[in-house]
Amino acid sequence: MIVGRVAGELTSTINHPFFDGRTLLIVDRETPDGEPTGDYLVAVDTVGAGRGQRVLVLDEGNGARQIVGCSTAPLRSVVVGIVDALG
Amino acid sequence: MIVGRVAGELTSTINHPFFDGRTLLIVDRETPDGEPTGDYLVAVDTVGAGRGQRVLVLDEGNGARQIVGCSTAPLRSVVVGIVDALG
Amino acid sequence: MIVGRVAGELTSTINHPFFDGRTLLIVDRETPDGEPTGDYLVAVDTVGAGRGQRVLVLDEGNGARQIVGCSTAPLRSVVVGIVDALG
Amino acid sequence: MIVGRVAGELTSTINHPFFDGRTLLIVDRETPDGEPTGDYLVAVDTVGAGRGQRVLVLDEGNGARQIVGCSTAPLRSVVVGIVDALG
Amino acid sequence: MIVGRVAGELTSTINHPFFDGRTLLIVDRETPDGEPTGDYLVAVDTVGAGRGQRVLVLDEGNGARQIVGCSTAPLRSVVVGIVDALG
Repeated sequence: MIVGRVAGELTSTINHPFFDGRTLLIVDRETPDGEPTGDYLVAVDTVGAGRGQRVLVLDEGNGARQIVGCSTAPLRSVVVGIVDALG
Repeated sequence: MIVGRVAGELTSTINHPFFDGRTLLIVDRETPDGEPTGDYLVAVDTVGAGRGQRVLVLDEGNGARQIVGCSTAPLRSVVVGIVDALG
Repeated sequence: MIVGRVAGELTSTINHPFFDGRTLLIVDRETPDGEPTGDYLVAVDTVGAGRGQRVLVLDEGNGARQIVGCSTAPLRSVVVGIVDALG
Repeated sequence: MIVGRVAGELTSTINHPFFDGRTLLIVDRETPDGEPTGDYLVAVDTVGAGRGQRVLVLDEGNGARQIVGCSTAPLRSVVVGIVDALG
Repeated sequence: MIVGRVAGELTSTINHPFFDGRTLLIVDRETPDGEPTGDYLVAVDTVGAGRGQRVLVLDEGNGARQIVGCSTAPLRSVVVGIVDALG
């Protein structure tokens, strides 16, 4: 799993029906010290994370599908926690 | 999942039968700001994306096979959405 | 699998219930010579590893779920051993 | 999936029985413009690709095993097509 | 799959029981020309590979578990062959 910060949302009209009503977050990857690594990923929110919050992201398809309760979801990355502290 | 821009198509005559009649897109990876990262991937289209369009790509085999409805597809990357906006 | 050193813990209040009572470790990746690579990952502890210890990390979801005995765990990385020596 | 060019073959006498009689190709990764990226992978041939040919490679274990028709194959990367054109 | 050279062994006393009696090898990744890439991985030996030998490594969990005949093994990387020649 990796840590990142929510940078915004992705809006998409034409897409797979699974994404209807789901929030797709842009998450900038960060080091444990909070420095951006320059990399990012797009993850489905499951904890109500908002812009600027530090989050824990699971980047693995089978686990991601378990979280959303849908074994056929076209999904790889999910925000699974909001980070309070690191250290 | 990642975001990229459709740069063109891949044409292949000798290949696995699964690819017959499917469109294989070259997708250049981009940052959320729209800068190319220099990396790319080849993805099967499922939303009718065309050259120059910004797309959401799922890069995970089991989810990709669910989308095309074929549990035996030799597949890892699928375009699952057209991006309207990021931010 | 990869080798790293425990740099600390991640604290998260709002998260998936699976993480309740589990220790999430920040593991800095290292070369076999013990130099940090600059990369890290967040892994669930299963061997009682503490800060500063060198550990073996499995970074693969299906195997990780087997270790914790939960086929639905939202999990990819698990500390599976404490390293005594390399060489 | 990624695109690369066949650079040669890997010969191995002591190995897992699955590899007996299979051709293992060294595939140099390339950009869509045909520049080598400096990275490579070892892939099982399934389309009769030869040295110097540009190929499409699937780098995902479950799909790779479907292609060779063996659910227990120790396999991750398979050449699934010969590339005619990109663009 | 990737090619590397065995640089040594990893010793671990406190670990998952699966690793009891198994040899964990440190494998330095190499280019097809035999230059180290600077990256490495830890892999379970299945072919009797020794220090300095060039090996083929499968880095994928489900296939790795098939090789060791244990569907619950906490495992991702396995040495599956000794390389005689590349080219």
